[in-house]
Amino acid sequence: MKKIFFVAGGDLRQIYAAKKLSEKFDVCITGFDKNIIIPENIKIINNISDMPLKADYLLLPMPVSTDGINLNAPFGKETIPLKSVEFCTKDSTTVFGGKINENIKSIFRLPDSSVYDYLEREEYTIMNAVSTAEGALQIALEEMPITIYDSDILITGWGRISKLLSKMLVALGANVTVSARKYSDLTWAKIYGCKTILISEMNNTAHKYDIVFNTVPAIVLGKAVLEKLNNDCLVVDLASKPGGVDFNVASSLGIKTIWALGLPGKSAPVSAGHMLADTIINILNERGELNE
Amino acid sequence: MKKIFFVAGGDLRQIYAAKKLSEKFDVCITGFDKNIIIPENIKIINNISDMPLKADYLLLPMPVSTDGINLNAPFGKETIPLKSVEFCTKDSTTVFGGKINENIKSIFRLPDSSVYDYLEREEYTIMNAVSTAEGALQIALEEMPITIYDSDILITGWGRISKLLSKMLVALGANVTVSARKYSDLTWAKIYGCKTILISEMNNTAHKYDIVFNTVPAIVLGKAVLEKLNNDCLVVDLASKPGGVDFNVASSLGIKTIWALGLPGKSAPVSAGHMLADTIINILNERGELNE
Amino acid sequence: MKKIFFVAGGDLRQIYAAKKLSEKFDVCITGFDKNIIIPENIKIINNISDMPLKADYLLLPMPVSTDGINLNAPFGKETIPLKSVEFCTKDSTTVFGGKINENIKSIFRLPDSSVYDYLEREEYTIMNAVSTAEGALQIALEEMPITIYDSDILITGWGRISKLLSKMLVALGANVTVSARKYSDLTWAKIYGCKTILISEMNNTAHKYDIVFNTVPAIVLGKAVLEKLNNDCLVVDLASKPGGVDFNVASSLGIKTIWALGLPGKSAPVSAGHMLADTIINILNERGELNE
Amino acid sequence: MKKIFFVAGGDLRQIYAAKKLSEKFDVCITGFDKNIIIPENIKIINNISDMPLKADYLLLPMPVSTDGINLNAPFGKETIPLKSVEFCTKDSTTVFGGKINENIKSIFRLPDSSVYDYLEREEYTIMNAVSTAEGALQIALEEMPITIYDSDILITGWGRISKLLSKMLVALGANVTVSARKYSDLTWAKIYGCKTILISEMNNTAHKYDIVFNTVPAIVLGKAVLEKLNNDCLVVDLASKPGGVDFNVASSLGIKTIWALGLPGKSAPVSAGHMLADTIINILNERGELNE
Repeated sequence: MKKIFFVAGGDLRQIYAAKKLSEKFDVCITGFDKNIIIPENIKIINNISDMPLKADYLLLPMPVSTDGINLNAPFGKETIPLKSVEFCTKDSTTVFGGKINENIKSIFRLPDSSVYDYLEREEYTIMNAVSTAEGALQIALEEMPITIYDSDILITGWGRISKLLSKMLVALGANVTVSARKYSDLTWAKIYGCKTILISEMNNTAHKYDIVFNTVPAIVLGKAVLEKLNNDCLVVDLASKPGGVDFNVASSLGIKTIWALGLPGKSAPVSAGHMLADTIINILNERGELNE
Repeated sequence: MKKIFFVAGGDLRQIYAAKKLSEKFDVCITGFDKNIIIPENIKIINNISDMPLKADYLLLPMPVSTDGINLNAPFGKETIPLKSVEFCTKDSTTVFGGKINENIKSIFRLPDSSVYDYLEREEYTIMNAVSTAEGALQIALEEMPITIYDSDILITGWGRISKLLSKMLVALGANVTVSARKYSDLTWAKIYGCKTILISEMNNTAHKYDIVFNTVPAIVLGKAVLEKLNNDCLVVDLASKPGGVDFNVASSLGIKTIWALGLPGKSAPVSAGHMLADTIINILNERGELNE
Repeated sequence: MKKIFFVAGGDLRQIYAAKKLSEKFDVCITGFDKNIIIPENIKIINNISDMPLKADYLLLPMPVSTDGINLNAPFGKETIPLKSVEFCTKDSTTVFGGKINENIKSIFRLPDSSVYDYLEREEYTIMNAVSTAEGALQIALEEMPITIYDSDILITGWGRISKLLSKMLVALGANVTVSARKYSDLTWAKIYGCKTILISEMNNTAHKYDIVFNTVPAIVLGKAVLEKLNNDCLVVDLASKPGGVDFNVASSLGIKTIWALGLPGKSAPVSAGHMLADTIINILNERGELNE
Repeated sequence: MKKIFFVAGGDLRQIYAAKKLSEKFDVCITGFDKNIIIPENIKIINNISDMPLKADYLLLPMPVSTDGINLNAPFGKETIPLKSVEFCTKDSTTVFGGKINENIKSIFRLPDSSVYDYLEREEYTIMNAVSTAEGALQIALEEMPITIYDSDILITGWGRISKLLSKMLVALGANVTVSARKYSDLTWAKIYGCKTILISEMNNTAHKYDIVFNTVPAIVLGKAVLEKLNNDCLVVDLASKPGGVDFNVASSLGIKTIWALGLPGKSAPVSAGHMLADTIINILNERGELNE
């Protein structure tokens, strides 16, 4: 008999995660209005007291709740208290969710070893970065009046998004410069086909870029650099808050800037859902629970 | 003294070509309304009788004329007869234009050795294909609910656009299959990281693709293949008329299809203008006229 | 019942071709000494009159014969007249061989439609070029006291070998310059990540290369270029006769030059044999003979 | 006036480092026999008492000493006590060396802030890994009777060498599988074009590889995997001691294994020297000593 995987709330990503999980589990789902098509092999739970059995696994959304009391379920018609979701679990249930905090843990009364925040899984974060990098590429294709090929592009930082985005842009034939603080990061960037410059020296080459992508969550694109940019240069900030661009300065200089947050969910919800399911399956593999 | 390059009519591409040509020539331009910003070092000719000297070189648009009598000048306020443009030339003028036919040649009364159709230049066509491939990539990024990464993509044909598009998609981590008729084309496609299949056998694998790009200007995506496609599969036709997709069948099957014509000019007018200037400079280099 | 494929003479490549062909055919082989291990499912024909049945297919070596009379069979103990091989064929036999000339054709008395020279098959030539390019890379790795990464490399020409070798070297992080006569070739080379220069202008940049690979079968590396090369520069000629390097001049200038002929067979005999079998299977597919 | 950089002992790498450093410094060198050609702008110190001035910077070899008393100077005719090298320094001298230990530090009586072990610099280690990966590629090209293209290759681990080597091999068209313990490593490897497998599951796919490269310094290629390898499979161990291959088992199974240590120095001494100089210049840049 297959184990029961209960998917509660969230956005479209959860549907696609549920679909993939249904290859291995009996999946029940709640928090989605009838207008959304749910695959036939997934059991829709309209009223949580209809849940046939306690869940072996529970997938919660990201964030789990916006008010600390009810489930984050934007596609559901009715409010679903977290307490009622907890009712569907048992002592041995394993829970997966995004941005799980102490409040959530206390509601579900589960030991730490049974609760997984998938945002803390490196492979999930990498795949989100893939999606973000593709979204950034799309912005460049849409906004620039020139081809990516042979354009001059600056990317700040050498984290996941920078690695992925530079890889794509180099492959498309752009002249990509990566700026970072550490020589070792610059060495890797050079190996992957980029030109390199220390962040402290960006202002020296700032005039030549057609587009600048920031991935550093600290103001690295301040006045000293921004005022050297070409008038036509587009600045795209991919960093999480507070971002890396001094928007006031950019605005006063008339530099077009785009703050691109939340690209993964928007641009590829199906893939985002699959990544989530993959990550959960990896966790279960590590726990040795898929060989049974 | 620099030679005189006269740019007459056309769209924004001509402006960017003019700008790049102005690095080497005295450029005069006609056929652009005052709302369009022309770089300062380019002389605007409002009335063709104001032309200071006969042109050494003349750049005509693509096509040169839509009615065979007047210049194709969509950004100009007034009609400009080709005859009046011809008035600005001399016996030694060299003329560049797109889709030049016998009628145009007879108006300009120039020997064949002085007339160049840049559409016949291979390097220009390649660069246009770069722009088309980037436009196709943009469509994929915009339309697909999944990441390019790890998606399954079919590209028909192994011409310029297919080579360029497959290169981009492989670099982004897609599983790209190229279909062609010749084993040698399939061999090259495999070397460049693609899976391969004979066009005659496409229907066997058609079910697994998330997106299909056609580059073959003959119906290769007929009923036999289309009816095997997945419901969610997107079909993008990049081939010039008549295209390679049986649109009636696709429509009756409910398959979403996009016929993407004219991508280069739309997506990257600056680059298109630069390519044009580069091609002209290559021609002049071959004629030995730039060493003077 | 499987058809009979008779493999006669040649070097180790034929063994590996025979092995792969034995997946689809009953393979008989002649011309190999007992010291060479022949897979068990291949029937060894020591005396050609032992051939159980006439061959449906016959694979001859490249070249078929060195004297026009006997089979080219360097691994065989005894001389095998072509006439005796012909004895194993019938009217419907299809023959495959390398560098087949009229003399060979007359001996085998077969219509042109039954004789295939695999050297004329594009996919076979491409795969040979892969092997040659890998051999060239090996030479560079062995001979140079510097890493390929970040080295400066010139490749002349833009044919198969140049395309493949430049692809490898660019991927390894070399600064690769391709020289060619045609602007369209240079455009492609640039798209594939190379710097470019006209062959006529190579002497201007010759001083900066660590290694030069020639793929043009005409003297493009004459005195004008050679005398500009750095003392430590290595020249590797990959072109077939007459090659592209003026060896006398190179020698008098003390430039180390390597004429690397016959790389495919030497460096990867197994792959060479498999390519041969693949090519034959492609031909049979085109003839519609493998669906039976 | 340029500062004085004193290069003492070591192998050929030190000469090339000295040459590159001589672009910015007055370089003196000791410990090299007359048979070795030293660039003219480098001052040879035969007798250490001839040293014109105390050194501002001192480059020592790796290791600095093999006996703890004398300089490691295999190309020098005479023994050079470390004490005499120390005599050429002053309080403000900065010292660079490889594998510097407490004994060395006590001899040079310098504060920790003036002593740099370049082996601890990440960018130096990366560049060494580039050289190692190229050496590994060379072994594969030399030893395998098949092309890298289309071969099946396993690489264990996802450290520097594995990242670099897999990048090269994927670019050459090999089917590369990376095995690692962490899902996040496998995710990156997949993004970079490799297939992936958990180290714990390698035995399931071991039969299909043509060559296996180990980069893990712990026995991951034990009996369970080795006995599943194909007879013709070559195993190359690139890990530092104790390596990752159970050589006894491999030997008893008749599997050809190569333990490839010290590849960087052997295969590309010039580049190794340049990397060393680059690393030193990076350190001086970080100390703000190159802007004076």
